[in-house]
Amino acid sequence: MLRTHTCGELTISDLGQTVTLCGWVQKSRDLGGMTFIDVRDRYGLTQLVLNTDTDATLRETARSLGREFVIKATGQVQERTSKNLKIPTGEIEIVATDIEILNAAKIPPFLIEDETDGGEELRAKFRYLDLRRNPIRNNLMLRHKMAQEVRKYLDGLNFIEVETPVLIKSTPEGARDFVVPSRMNPGEFYALPQSPQTFKQLLMVSGFDRYFQIVKCFRDEDLRADRQPEFTQIDCEMAFITQEDILHIFEGLTRHLFKTVKGIHLDKFPRMDYADAMRLYGSDKPDIRLGMEFVELNDLTKGKNFGIFDNAELVVGINVKGCAEYTRKQIDELTEWLKRPQIGATGMIYCRYGSDGTLKSSVDKFYGEDDLTNWAAAFNAEPGDLMLILAGKTDKVRKQLGELRLEMGARLSLRDKNTFAPLWVIDFPLLEWDEETGRYHAMHHPFTSPKPEDIALLDTAPGEVRANAYDMVINGVEIGGGSIRIHDRALQSLMFKHLGFTQQEAQKQFGFLMDAFEYGAPPHGGIAFGFDRLCSIFAGLDSIRDVIAFPKNNSGRDLMIDTPSTIAKSQMNELKIRTTV
Amino acid sequence: MLRTHTCGELTISDLGQTVTLCGWVQKSRDLGGMTFIDVRDRYGLTQLVLNTDTDATLRETARSLGREFVIKATGQVQERTSKNLKIPTGEIEIVATDIEILNAAKIPPFLIEDETDGGEELRAKFRYLDLRRNPIRNNLMLRHKMAQEVRKYLDGLNFIEVETPVLIKSTPEGARDFVVPSRMNPGEFYALPQSPQTFKQLLMVSGFDRYFQIVKCFRDEDLRADRQPEFTQIDCEMAFITQEDILHIFEGLTRHLFKTVKGIHLDKFPRMDYADAMRLYGSDKPDIRLGMEFVELNDLTKGKNFGIFDNAELVVGINVKGCAEYTRKQIDELTEWLKRPQIGATGMIYCRYGSDGTLKSSVDKFYGEDDLTNWAAAFNAEPGDLMLILAGKTDKVRKQLGELRLEMGARLSLRDKNTFAPLWVIDFPLLEWDEETGRYHAMHHPFTSPKPEDIALLDTAPGEVRANAYDMVINGVEIGGGSIRIHDRALQSLMFKHLGFTQQEAQKQFGFLMDAFEYGAPPHGGIAFGFDRLCSIFAGLDSIRDVIAFPKNNSGRDLMIDTPSTIAKSQMNELKIRTTV
Repeated sequence: MLRTHTCGELTISDLGQTVTLCGWVQKSRDLGGMTFIDVRDRYGLTQLVLNTDTDATLRETARSLGREFVIKATGQVQERTSKNLKIPTGEIEIVATDIEILNAAKIPPFLIEDETDGGEELRAKFRYLDLRRNPIRNNLMLRHKMAQEVRKYLDGLNFIEVETPVLIKSTPEGARDFVVPSRMNPGEFYALPQSPQTFKQLLMVSGFDRYFQIVKCFRDEDLRADRQPEFTQIDCEMAFITQEDILHIFEGLTRHLFKTVKGIHLDKFPRMDYADAMRLYGSDKPDIRLGMEFVELNDLTKGKNFGIFDNAELVVGINVKGCAEYTRKQIDELTEWLKRPQIGATGMIYCRYGSDGTLKSSVDKFYGEDDLTNWAAAFNAEPGDLMLILAGKTDKVRKQLGELRLEMGARLSLRDKNTFAPLWVIDFPLLEWDEETGRYHAMHHPFTSPKPEDIALLDTAPGEVRANAYDMVINGVEIGGGSIRIHDRALQSLMFKHLGFTQQEAQKQFGFLMDAFEYGAPPHGGIAFGFDRLCSIFAGLDSIRDVIAFPKNNSGRDLMIDTPSTIAKSQMNELKIRTTV
Repeated sequence: MLRTHTCGELTISDLGQTVTLCGWVQKSRDLGGMTFIDVRDRYGLTQLVLNTDTDATLRETARSLGREFVIKATGQVQERTSKNLKIPTGEIEIVATDIEILNAAKIPPFLIEDETDGGEELRAKFRYLDLRRNPIRNNLMLRHKMAQEVRKYLDGLNFIEVETPVLIKSTPEGARDFVVPSRMNPGEFYALPQSPQTFKQLLMVSGFDRYFQIVKCFRDEDLRADRQPEFTQIDCEMAFITQEDILHIFEGLTRHLFKTVKGIHLDKFPRMDYADAMRLYGSDKPDIRLGMEFVELNDLTKGKNFGIFDNAELVVGINVKGCAEYTRKQIDELTEWLKRPQIGATGMIYCRYGSDGTLKSSVDKFYGEDDLTNWAAAFNAEPGDLMLILAGKTDKVRKQLGELRLEMGARLSLRDKNTFAPLWVIDFPLLEWDEETGRYHAMHHPFTSPKPEDIALLDTAPGEVRANAYDMVINGVEIGGGSIRIHDRALQSLMFKHLGFTQQEAQKQFGFLMDAFEYGAPPHGGIAFGFDRLCSIFAGLDSIRDVIAFPKNNSGRDLMIDTPSTIAKSQMNELKIRTTV
């Protein structure tokens, strides 16, 4: 080793030792005769003190040092006169007698500090410098620790990590695939996996019993802030289990992670039907920290000649604690916020419960004090509260109110990054109607098992069939989802039929899986966690980008290595492809 | 859970318990009135006994069962009358009172037994059934255990696992890339990584200090039995270290794996210069279990009018213990083996040291007893030994003799799969001459640091420059290799120049790395292990195929899922590519 210690470990108990440290110059102060240098590495920061008065070589070296120079310093540990108790090494300093410059550094294009002055694009181009900053490095160390703990927990429960292939087969079902032309099989392509779904099911058919993998997956979708073309899943599958076993084991995994990585104890996770989640929160991933359950007011609002309510399929609202004093301006602003195309509401009704006990609504023309009192009772409202009510088509209005609820939660600072509210959402519908294609799609994926008692509905009311499918939600973010799978050829065929596959298409694309089901497939099910998302929640971040070492931007580009890029004509010739740009 | 126990855990201490097992029917014997069924899962095998005489339902179920049916059986644990002490559950059986068929099974296309009757192709097509066989499943469980132990060891030494991107940039240096067309950037491509080399170096520039990753890598090369288009590396890098530190830490990793996974203690690994390895074994990955070091005989053979030796650049041989009794026919056969185009020798000289102490060679016409006695002394030969001698151009003849040595080792059964002889080969040349392109190539890769004392030779004798590069070899198989890297822009530029890059080419392809070296890059180095290869050595296999769950065949095809395959015209249109087949 070029060093005897790291920059994070020397303390008062090491006084008098002669040590050698290596690291980056964080800052340097020339006090005339004495130079103080903070040297930094992954483990911490240590102060060097150089007597530049007496040692000319040292003086010259000290003068040539700039920020981010890489140095090797040897000297004796002594107690500091002015201590910094905020860092573990803050009581000592090294009286450096020898400094070697291991590598010089140009002035970095932005500050390598916890708070930097670098813009998004500059930091992306110099990602290797951005990664030097503590917050980002800490995120990646957190991620490492989480991955280690995931493996420790699952290994302890007899799960085997099996690597499934990255070069697989393109299937038109689901999101868009990335494809890879095959040189050895001209005209043919591999696809990168969107998930190892079929492989993990085959491993169950193979008797592996308990499988997991922390694995890269790929989706060629248009990107948003929290989406990346390549992302990481904790992918899991078990045989001979019921849904209850999966919920139990993976709730255990999540609690294990919170305990070991963040020191947080979580109680048993509450569970909620999909139907209830939609009815009470207008979302299949409710943030239950916020309270503000929906209250349906159809019974209390109809028949009073207020057309908007009378004509609405659903009248529904939330009670916002302590916001009765919202000004007209604030309420107008909220209404405008709701009317933006992203939300699409047509308007908002409010009812103030003044701190003096009076009730005042924006529809006083139609509803008297008795009505408002009934509303307040339905909302469980108290003086000081503000009731916000929307009306319209059930599905739409629930979504709109769900957005409003999140917005009010944010305004009331109820979305604290250090409070964690996990939730299981269960009993998802098997199918969802797709307006665009005019047919049903699998809500989870085509391998999800319908609830046995609902199978009869497949022909008559496909949208009402419930699946043995479940999502884990934390703080309004879906961090995992899974299902009990179909393990029977006949049922799998029936599912493909209902999803609009011809028998030939189903056989061509998923024949290997249906064939496998005929050779002794056990009942099985599983779950997959979005590992990037899970890490970002643990790190208290809104985006997954800073829990990924080398993320891509919204155009799918890596600005640092400048990819994607053109390739040589000869490469395309070998692959027997051509671009048509 | 559908079961109370697995098929591998019930023993004599569980007598009397009522249990439920799930698994696959391994075999079933109807003894008239009693049916015995072996039910199997990943954990083991348990015998069920069914009283089919008294229970008609049970009789009917038992009769309908076939091999590989998936069943759930409930009953009481009782002591067996005829015990099988070879398996942990062999002292007990379950008196099953209830059998439920969870899934039927067609007759499998080959035997699901340790020794199967299925051919290569059939087993590949039904890989999910082949994976049910104990030897293959055990390989994958071994692999899981090895990956866990790698992580445990490296995590314990402060290494951080960081995921590097899979969608990167194509570089013409090295092997052929797999490429991925970018839909969002038409006409441009990503490439799949051949290794995370540049990213791990950037992580060192970022101050990560100790990095590792168990990671998929990709090479679009023509395939051999032990190559796959996608393969897995244990990829590692460290900063502020010397070569000695890397050898120490990763020798430690390997010893940790042998100890924890195979219970084998390995002593300190011997080290050998590349030059010595070539001189003594004709290989940069010698199997040192075999002995038979090369003995050079130029001094003892020249000037005796034997043209073949007189004209040879090198006369060199090995002494094969105890083979003096080889018949003329056996020796002729060996000579023919050497003359095959794969080896390309022109002939072989032998000298027998008879058990009676007499020496007899195939060149007695030219060499008298004194000569042969001198040869025997040089070989350290004893009565009963056989000396085999080749002559020719140094590099060629060393390779040929190296092959002969391995062949003799195999014939003498010296290549035992349970004896492990690790070795470090160090001081590799930096460059090797490529006949085809008529220029020097990096022997390891372009980022490898030359030995400082040899840098001056770069201009005058490039082939003699040694690198700070090292390989770990076990039993004649290269399982890992690495180097100390260049961390300085000027030296890296010089290297690219010597490798035939123009300055523009170097900047276009690796500018990001050379730029990074200007912002404070620490001295660093690393190593990468071929994880598939390492697993196959631990499993005692010659090929890596059976330590991979879903391998591809020699044409890069997965016969089970039938990929690569054609994709839809619409997919190609979206990607703005076209095939030219």
